[in-house]
Amino acid sequence: MQIVTARAARVTNLITASNFRPQGLRMTATVNRSAVLSGQMIIAGEPVYGSGATIHGIDPSTNATLEPGYRHGGPDEVDRACAAAAEAFGPYRRTDAQTRARFIESIADNIEALGDTLVHRACTESGLPEGRIRGEVGRTAGQLRLFASVLREGSWNGARIDPAQPDRTPLPRADIRQRKVPLGPVAVFGASNFPLAFSVAGGDTASALAAGCPVVVKAHDAHPGTSELVARAITEAVASTGMPAGTFSLLFGTGRDLGTALVTDPRIKAVGFTGSRSGGTALVRAAAARPEPIPVYAEMSSINPVFPLPQALAARGAELGAAFAGSLTLGSGQFCTNPGLVIAVDGPGLDAFVAAAAAAVADATPTAMLTPNIAESYAAGVTALAEEATVESRATATDEPNRCAAALFSTDAESFVDSEVLQQEVFGASSVIVRCRDTAQVRDVATRLEGQLTATVHADDTDLDDAGELLDILELKAGRILFGGWPTGVEVGHAMVHGGPYPSTSDSRTTSVGSLAIERFLRPVAYQDVPPTLLPAAIADGNPDRIWRRVDGQLTKD
Amino acid sequence: MQIVTARAARVTNLITASNFRPQGLRMTATVNRSAVLSGQMIIAGEPVYGSGATIHGIDPSTNATLEPGYRHGGPDEVDRACAAAAEAFGPYRRTDAQTRARFIESIADNIEALGDTLVHRACTESGLPEGRIRGEVGRTAGQLRLFASVLREGSWNGARIDPAQPDRTPLPRADIRQRKVPLGPVAVFGASNFPLAFSVAGGDTASALAAGCPVVVKAHDAHPGTSELVARAITEAVASTGMPAGTFSLLFGTGRDLGTALVTDPRIKAVGFTGSRSGGTALVRAAAARPEPIPVYAEMSSINPVFPLPQALAARGAELGAAFAGSLTLGSGQFCTNPGLVIAVDGPGLDAFVAAAAAAVADATPTAMLTPNIAESYAAGVTALAEEATVESRATATDEPNRCAAALFSTDAESFVDSEVLQQEVFGASSVIVRCRDTAQVRDVATRLEGQLTATVHADDTDLDDAGELLDILELKAGRILFGGWPTGVEVGHAMVHGGPYPSTSDSRTTSVGSLAIERFLRPVAYQDVPPTLLPAAIADGNPDRIWRRVDGQLTKD
Repeated sequence: MQIVTARAARVTNLITASNFRPQGLRMTATVNRSAVLSGQMIIAGEPVYGSGATIHGIDPSTNATLEPGYRHGGPDEVDRACAAAAEAFGPYRRTDAQTRARFIESIADNIEALGDTLVHRACTESGLPEGRIRGEVGRTAGQLRLFASVLREGSWNGARIDPAQPDRTPLPRADIRQRKVPLGPVAVFGASNFPLAFSVAGGDTASALAAGCPVVVKAHDAHPGTSELVARAITEAVASTGMPAGTFSLLFGTGRDLGTALVTDPRIKAVGFTGSRSGGTALVRAAAARPEPIPVYAEMSSINPVFPLPQALAARGAELGAAFAGSLTLGSGQFCTNPGLVIAVDGPGLDAFVAAAAAAVADATPTAMLTPNIAESYAAGVTALAEEATVESRATATDEPNRCAAALFSTDAESFVDSEVLQQEVFGASSVIVRCRDTAQVRDVATRLEGQLTATVHADDTDLDDAGELLDILELKAGRILFGGWPTGVEVGHAMVHGGPYPSTSDSRTTSVGSLAIERFLRPVAYQDVPPTLLPAAIADGNPDRIWRRVDGQLTKD
Repeated sequence: MQIVTARAARVTNLITASNFRPQGLRMTATVNRSAVLSGQMIIAGEPVYGSGATIHGIDPSTNATLEPGYRHGGPDEVDRACAAAAEAFGPYRRTDAQTRARFIESIADNIEALGDTLVHRACTESGLPEGRIRGEVGRTAGQLRLFASVLREGSWNGARIDPAQPDRTPLPRADIRQRKVPLGPVAVFGASNFPLAFSVAGGDTASALAAGCPVVVKAHDAHPGTSELVARAITEAVASTGMPAGTFSLLFGTGRDLGTALVTDPRIKAVGFTGSRSGGTALVRAAAARPEPIPVYAEMSSINPVFPLPQALAARGAELGAAFAGSLTLGSGQFCTNPGLVIAVDGPGLDAFVAAAAAAVADATPTAMLTPNIAESYAAGVTALAEEATVESRATATDEPNRCAAALFSTDAESFVDSEVLQQEVFGASSVIVRCRDTAQVRDVATRLEGQLTATVHADDTDLDDAGELLDILELKAGRILFGGWPTGVEVGHAMVHGGPYPSTSDSRTTSVGSLAIERFLRPVAYQDVPPTLLPAAIADGNPDRIWRRVDGQLTKD
């Protein structure tokens, strides 16, 4: 107990500064770079102990328990965080784009400043290798800075002006202007598989903060220490850039208890989630059943089909198979875009592909999965697949805890189409080869697929007619279509779509990666004959922010 | 029977031409301008009799039954229409923007060509005056042409290109491009109160067709003849411009039976609806309970608060009151944006406002409502209001059928906030004045309001501080904020928002009027390293369509 108290005291000293009212407050960023964690939530800048069950991070590679414990919060903490977020919303949304951009960049700086403390904790809690976590830190900071640049560029305002036409007959036209405003406080559910890029300061948080929405994060129990460290970095940025304290809170708790309370709190106006189909579906239902339903952006389930076409297989089946296995086994297969399905015309080319992939899978060193639960689910999923499909190859299991032994299965098109088991996502490094009679059957299987985050085509020049026909189908099935690569890399940029038709997400009209994501947390408002002095800058006369605007339907910076 | 058969034969001759396969077919538009109606649905160009209950249009001003009868369809007709829409979707979405623009303009031409036939039928079925219906024909054609211009302008593609960076370290960047694709076949539910602009060829149909989505309309039983005429105009345009036959279908049926079958059909991918809160809520629930949930754009319930501020009331309370009554009683108050609420500081200015409004309401000639059901609901709503608020004024009722006797009520802020009845929309020409102690109480009441389509402020120069504080609140409550006007006019343009937070609509992120509405039926897709020959024109090298695109985050036509 004594130790816990001492730790808590240090963190409290660190954090307390950010409880001051933000107006005028400017601090030098002094992010605590020590590994000392408090085991506390952070509500509007204040460290808070929960009163529920205590959970610990664990090192999944050894099952060792990590200190400190984190006690879960419940409805009381949700109420406090949401009240603070609602109070912060007014002043936060009225900050100008430049101010908000600096705040978001400050989060990025603070996360990078955590350095090895963050990297080591995230590696230990996730079982992911250091290179991967260092890359994820860079990606997380980079995506925060991307949204800062989006704020400065200004098109996110969706500014439109239809000037008055006082002399129009039979009726004059009023002056009508449109801009976008933030929806309100957003609940973000951290994902297990990207402890940084899809978690506390991940894409959902970055895009919501950029849009002008305060954020309440429910941390994922798989990486509580990482979550606390990142939450401190955000809290520091809130204080040092003078944002309202309630702009950000971090909560720990169960999905059923705290998560439901969060999604059903009337002050929450949108939800971002990355996780399982069952978890996402439960959130969507809870949000829809509210007296005021709200949008839920849940990224859920995708098996990411790969379509190596006949000529590509004939020319380089073995090479493709080996590369495929590399994408499949990367990070224990724990990517939303992991290629869980290969659909191709049977023949020697596919045989070479399967042989090379099977050899690589058999040789793959089993690596730790994120949590014991995920490892158990993977094992069960692989067992179920083995009952319905031919086992092509399995990596040799080891006695070490939570290891993912990669697995490769095959089946024919008819069996695949008839089997719910074969069409379900198994989270981890397993994949099913679907052998088809001809390209028509490949297209038929493609047409029957559920919605996907990605679809990958490998085509040689002589495959292009087939590829074109397939592309027509895949455009309606997936959020991203790749040629010649592998889906596990997701570039953070302006053109990326990380989304797709149900069940890959609950809302195909958007993306959770890339600059377009800011639109998820905005809605348009029209201003009719509003006096010039009351107009927001984005739609004011003379375009003071020099942003792109649509005037009488034409884009202009005038 | 003989008469019905003869009528059917004429219409069949007219329509059959459009059943041919569209490829290469070009016809001279020969829209039937006679008043002869068939009483049939139109499924993919084919006239079809229903087999369910027979409904008739009625003239609500006399309760006279209008011929012909229309027999309701059911699940079988839904299945046929959806199968045809799904078949049409592929070729229709692949038409280029120019072709689709010409198709949509052809619908506008054909509707205008219906001339007096359409105007007279719509007037008779709706009880609305000729000037209003002629205006609505112009608006309907105008909004179709607006979407044609949107198609040609090209920004709707949402084209984004992040060029490859082969030399980037540590990893090269792939070539990633983004464009928007249509969601799929859309179900549109015609509204009763705009038999043209929010019905068969209304905003939902226009924006969905522009987006590349086939449309299946469920006609509103209040204007079956108008629906048939407009559906013929669309069907003619489908044929004459060579669109696939299944691009458009018109069905008649009940909401519970045919409507539910339509929303739950797996081939339908989005829904547009304008109507009651209960009807919209039922559709949202049905869509959410599908194995594949789909977006529903339901415009439902709004009481459109008006805020005359103290100085404006002091300067011209009587003038504002009289103008308010004009907006209130327009078209029997049957607008989604009818001003059903006035929130103001009590005092002589508000007294003058109320006196003038009350006098105008008392003098208002009761006019026919759209349907007997709507008139009954209005009467019941007014009776309920009279039990909870002070009756300021009521128009003298007449013995003529379905007349809307305008009504004005008043109450104090506390009573209003406590009463569910007073906060509910009463569809028709009734309004409630909420007397507040001061502007702080005005803001308090504003903060407690549900989501609205519009909020209207009347402010003089000395009111501007109050107006600014109110604007901050109203931005989060309404889709459109007006100063100095009345909400009943909804301009069709680029900057308009006809939408708002729940329950005014089921999705605040969008609008049902204006060019932004095309985005409701689109979703983004990313193309990674797709071979140049397979790239759609919108994101092809060299920008062949000369549209605005975001290249590395910057807008350009290069």
